[in-house]
Amino acid sequence: MSIKLILTGGTIDKHYNESNGALGFKETHIPGLLKLGRNRSDIEIEKTMLKDSLEMTYFDRQTILKVCTASQQNKIIITHGTDTIVETAAVLGKEKIDKTIVLVGAMIPFVFKHSDAEFNMGFALGAVQCLPHGVYVAMNGKVFDWDSVVKNREQGIFEMLTQNTEKIGGWQLKTIIFMVLSL
Amino acid sequence: MSIKLILTGGTIDKHYNESNGALGFKETHIPGLLKLGRNRSDIEIEKTMLKDSLEMTYFDRQTILKVCTASQQNKIIITHGTDTIVETAAVLGKEKIDKTIVLVGAMIPFVFKHSDAEFNMGFALGAVQCLPHGVYVAMNGKVFDWDSVVKNREQGIFEMLTQNTEKIGGWQLKTIIFMVLSL
Amino acid sequence: MSIKLILTGGTIDKHYNESNGALGFKETHIPGLLKLGRNRSDIEIEKTMLKDSLEMTYFDRQTILKVCTASQQNKIIITHGTDTIVETAAVLGKEKIDKTIVLVGAMIPFVFKHSDAEFNMGFALGAVQCLPHGVYVAMNGKVFDWDSVVKNREQGIFEMLTQNTEKIGGWQLKTIIFMVLSL
Amino acid sequence: MSIKLILTGGTIDKHYNESNGALGFKETHIPGLLKLGRNRSDIEIEKTMLKDSLEMTYFDRQTILKVCTASQQNKIIITHGTDTIVETAAVLGKEKIDKTIVLVGAMIPFVFKHSDAEFNMGFALGAVQCLPHGVYVAMNGKVFDWDSVVKNREQGIFEMLTQNTEKIGGWQLKTIIFMVLSL
Repeated sequence: MSIKLILTGGTIDKHYNESNGALGFKETHIPGLLKLGRNRSDIEIEKTMLKDSLEMTYFDRQTILKVCTASQQNKIIITHGTDTIVETAAVLGKEKIDKTIVLVGAMIPFVFKHSDAEFNMGFALGAVQCLPHGVYVAMNGKVFDWDSVVKNREQGIFEMLTQNTEKIGGWQLKTIIFMVLSL
Repeated sequence: MSIKLILTGGTIDKHYNESNGALGFKETHIPGLLKLGRNRSDIEIEKTMLKDSLEMTYFDRQTILKVCTASQQNKIIITHGTDTIVETAAVLGKEKIDKTIVLVGAMIPFVFKHSDAEFNMGFALGAVQCLPHGVYVAMNGKVFDWDSVVKNREQGIFEMLTQNTEKIGGWQLKTIIFMVLSL
Repeated sequence: MSIKLILTGGTIDKHYNESNGALGFKETHIPGLLKLGRNRSDIEIEKTMLKDSLEMTYFDRQTILKVCTASQQNKIIITHGTDTIVETAAVLGKEKIDKTIVLVGAMIPFVFKHSDAEFNMGFALGAVQCLPHGVYVAMNGKVFDWDSVVKNREQGIFEMLTQNTEKIGGWQLKTIIFMVLSL
Repeated sequence: MSIKLILTGGTIDKHYNESNGALGFKETHIPGLLKLGRNRSDIEIEKTMLKDSLEMTYFDRQTILKVCTASQQNKIIITHGTDTIVETAAVLGKEKIDKTIVLVGAMIPFVFKHSDAEFNMGFALGAVQCLPHGVYVAMNGKVFDWDSVVKNREQGIFEMLTQNTEKIGGWQLKTIIFMVLSL
C-alpha cells in the first residue's frame, strides 16, 4: 500500500532563519519527522510548494488538485498551513476525487520543542490508511469531513461546523469569501 | 466518538530514575504526550499497570482482556511494550471481541529527544478511529493484523509474517512458546 | 555569592505566537532554562524589557546601565539580542563599572529543539563567577572583551576584532555609527 | 587558548540501547552537544573511557591523572559520572597539578528532553577559561573546590561540605572509604 505525501509548506514545515530571525521556509523537515517516527510505510513525497497558507493562491490550489488527480496512489496526505487548510480541503472536496485525501498541519512548527507536528503527522498517516474515499482535515486528534470543519482562530483549534454556519451550495460562506478575495 | 486508552507501560512510558540512573516506571507520560499533540478527541484513560512487557504475566494479559471486554467504548488503544506486544495482541485477537483494538508502543521512550512516541501515539489514534472491528498492532507507520505481525528484534522493526512462519491453530509458534513459558 | 541576571529579551527569549505565526515576546523562558540546568546558584532576576535588540534605543541602554550601576551584586549577566549586543557592551564598558558584567544571547531561541540557549546561559554563568571585573560578551563558547568583539553576520558567529577594524577613541567605528543612527 | 576535554563517560554521555532497553555507552554525545552550543573555542577531545562512574577503578583514575599531567593544555575539562566525581576530583586535587581542571557531569543524560547536560557543559567551559589553577567540580551552576564538595544523593544535588564532615589529611572520610573499597 503506497501513500502519496504532498508537501505545500505551512506552519508544520517552517524553518528558523538565523540571519534575520524570522520564520520562513528553506528545506522541508517532513522526511526527518518520518524518520524520527521510524516510519516504514511506503510513502512517495512530492513537494509542490513551501508556502504560508495565507499566501496560497487560486493557482496554487489548482496545482495541488492536479497532483491529487494525477497521483497513482489513492491514499494521499497533504501537509498544509492551518489558516486556509479548510479552503484547500473544499477545493479538493468539491471535485469528488475517488481517493482518500487527508490534509494535516500543525499549530507549532516541527523545529520547536513543544511542536504538535510529530503527533499530527502520525495521526494523518494512521487515518489515511483506514478511511474510505473522501477529503478530510486531520487536526487535534480528530478527523473532520472537509465540508464540516472550521478553524477556531481564537482558541487555535479545529471544530465541527455548527448547524448555524452559513453555507451556499455546500460551501461555507467564509470559505467562498476567502477564495474570491484570494483570486 | 469516545475512545478508551488502556495504559500498560512499555518502553513508550519509561521514566528516568535519577537516584539509580536506571529506566523504570513512575507516573505515565501519556497525558502529557496527548497535550503536546493538542489532542481534543474524547479519550478515557485507564492505567491497568506500568510494566516492562517482558515482565507481563498471563494474569496481566487477562486483566487487559477484561478491561477491553468491559469497556463501554468500542474503540480502544493499548500502550504496550514492544517486546511482547504481539503476544498480548494474540490473546485479545483470539477472543473475537466486537471492538476496534489498536496496540501501540515505541522503540525509544517519550522522555528522549529522539523518541518515536509522539508519532506512534498519533498514528494509533488516527487508525483506531477509522479501522473496522478487530485487533491490530500499529508500529512503524503501519497497521498490522494481530495474527500476521512479528517483531524483528535485530532491526528493531515490525514486519508482516512471512508464509513460512510456523503457526498452530492460527497462533505463531513462537507466541505459543512465549506464553507457555510466561505462565 | 549572589548574581544579578538582567533580562532584556533578544533571540534567546523569543516566543512563538500561535495566533499570527510570528516570533515575539511574551513571558521570559529564562527561569525555565535555569531550572532545566538545575541551577542552584543564587540568582536575582530583573526583567528590564523584552525586546528585539534591533529595536533597542539609547534610552533602553541607559536603563540597562542604571540597573548595572545600582545592582547590589557585583556579578551581572545580561541576556541580550545578538544583533546589537556589542553596542550595549560598549555602552557599559565605557563606564568602567567596578563589576563583572557578562552579556549573552543565542542564535536560536530557547524554544527551538536545536537551540544554543542552554549551553550559552550555562557558559555565561560559569564565566561571570570567575572573571575579573570588566564587561564581556560570551558567545560561541568564548569570552570576548567588550572592545574587541564583532558579530560576523554572514556566518552567524562572534569573532575577535582584527587589527584593521577602525576604532575612534576605543570604540568600533560601526558601533559609533549604529548608536548615532539609533538615537 | 586551547582546552583539553577528557571524556570518561558518566550519566551525561549515556546512550539508549534499543535492543535491550537499557542505558549504556556507545559513542560519545559530547561533540554533538558542543556543536549544538555552537562552540568555537579550541577544544581537543580525548576519550579515555566511557564508564559509569560507579565502575571506575583505581587504575581508571590513574589513567585520568596521567592524561591531565601529560596534557599540553593547562585548561582541562573532564566529563564524569556524578556518583564518584568527588572521588576522582580528590585524586587529581591531591597531586597539585599546575593546571585548571574542571570536572563536570549531568543528572540527566544528554539524550533526554529534560537534560541538564547542555547547561552544565556550557557552564564548565565558561568556568575553566577563567578560573585560577586548581581542581574543581562544576555542577548546579556552581563551582566547588575539589576538597569542599559533596553529592547529596537524596536530593540529587551538589553542596558545599559542612564543617562537620569528617576529614583525614584533607580527604573526606567517605571518599577515603570509597576509594579503599574500589581498589
